[in-house]
Amino acid sequence: MPSDTRERLIDAGAELFWRQGYVATGVKQIVTTASAPFGSMYHFFPGGKEQLGAEAVRRSGAAYGELVPLFFDTAADVVSATLSLFGGAADTLRDTDWADACPIATVALEVSNTSEPLRQACADVFESWLELLGERFRAAGIAPDRAREVAIVLVALLEGAFVLARAMRTTEPVLAAGRAAVAEVERALSPDAG
Amino acid sequence: MPSDTRERLIDAGAELFWRQGYVATGVKQIVTTASAPFGSMYHFFPGGKEQLGAEAVRRSGAAYGELVPLFFDTAADVVSATLSLFGGAADTLRDTDWADACPIATVALEVSNTSEPLRQACADVFESWLELLGERFRAAGIAPDRAREVAIVLVALLEGAFVLARAMRTTEPVLAAGRAAVAEVERALSPDAG
Repeated sequence: MPSDTRERLIDAGAELFWRQGYVATGVKQIVTTASAPFGSMYHFFPGGKEQLGAEAVRRSGAAYGELVPLFFDTAADVVSATLSLFGGAADTLRDTDWADACPIATVALEVSNTSEPLRQACADVFESWLELLGERFRAAGIAPDRAREVAIVLVALLEGAFVLARAMRTTEPVLAAGRAAVAEVERALSPDAG
Repeated sequence: MPSDTRERLIDAGAELFWRQGYVATGVKQIVTTASAPFGSMYHFFPGGKEQLGAEAVRRSGAAYGELVPLFFDTAADVVSATLSLFGGAADTLRDTDWADACPIATVALEVSNTSEPLRQACADVFESWLELLGERFRAAGIAPDRAREVAIVLVALLEGAFVLARAMRTTEPVLAAGRAAVAEVERALSPDAG
């Protein structure tokens, strides 16, 4: 079977998990979305939906992680990068009818206590984002432990704001979280100021 | 049919949605968990799982909202209340094997773009928490608009930290989020200090 079928299955899974979560997505829907023959699923993924799911989470996570260099390596400093990141997230969310938020958060909550391979894939993705962000904060002169903490606070603010904003249908939580994220970054850059 | 059957069905739904999400929970499992006759489900909830789901979300949300007076009305001030809230959340999460976090976040992400009655129930719950928290911050002397913003930031930090902590199996994100929440509250209490 052509190996690009395998890629298409992972992409289809990633897209469906992003839009509707892991549990609501059936193998049949993944195969149909990928325009793949049904047998290809178990040919490429003998572990079934869970195996494909872990690969899809890692792929979505890597793609979303590219937002970090996109925003941080083009901005004047980490403060303006943080502001742009949350502003961009708010715009995207509103422009996609409150759908286009974190690609793995729904899966992470759904599987944390039911699938160890999927939980691990989500944990690895979160760690990779923390490392990407932490690297930028360290480069801005923030001590390593504090840089990790700022990265955690940023990701937590973004994930939490997405939960609120998608349900409440307003960008208000994302913009408020963005202002708090900026304050956190500024606080870390000037530790003596409080 | 005895009306306490109706209550038991809602409680069973709330518990199951909390533990495993909305999509993974079947009507049969709700009925079995409630020790209710199968026909009772559609007797009390002609709208099926979605109708019961909206009631269960509102019930879970009201119960979780009781944490606000529990922590804030017994503490010396809003800063120590915030610190205790996040500390308590971290302890609970670790002691329950990373299961016992927000009772409605998984449902909120799952249904935001697929069920309007459930999305609305989640939005109403989040609004009720923001009002409960905002009331405490206003009473502490923070201006109404800023009090709402601090409330949003607190809930976002907690929700986001839960997403990370449950996947990563560590209290680190909840404790980091707690420190950021305290900083946000302190900043709001002393606006001139930055």
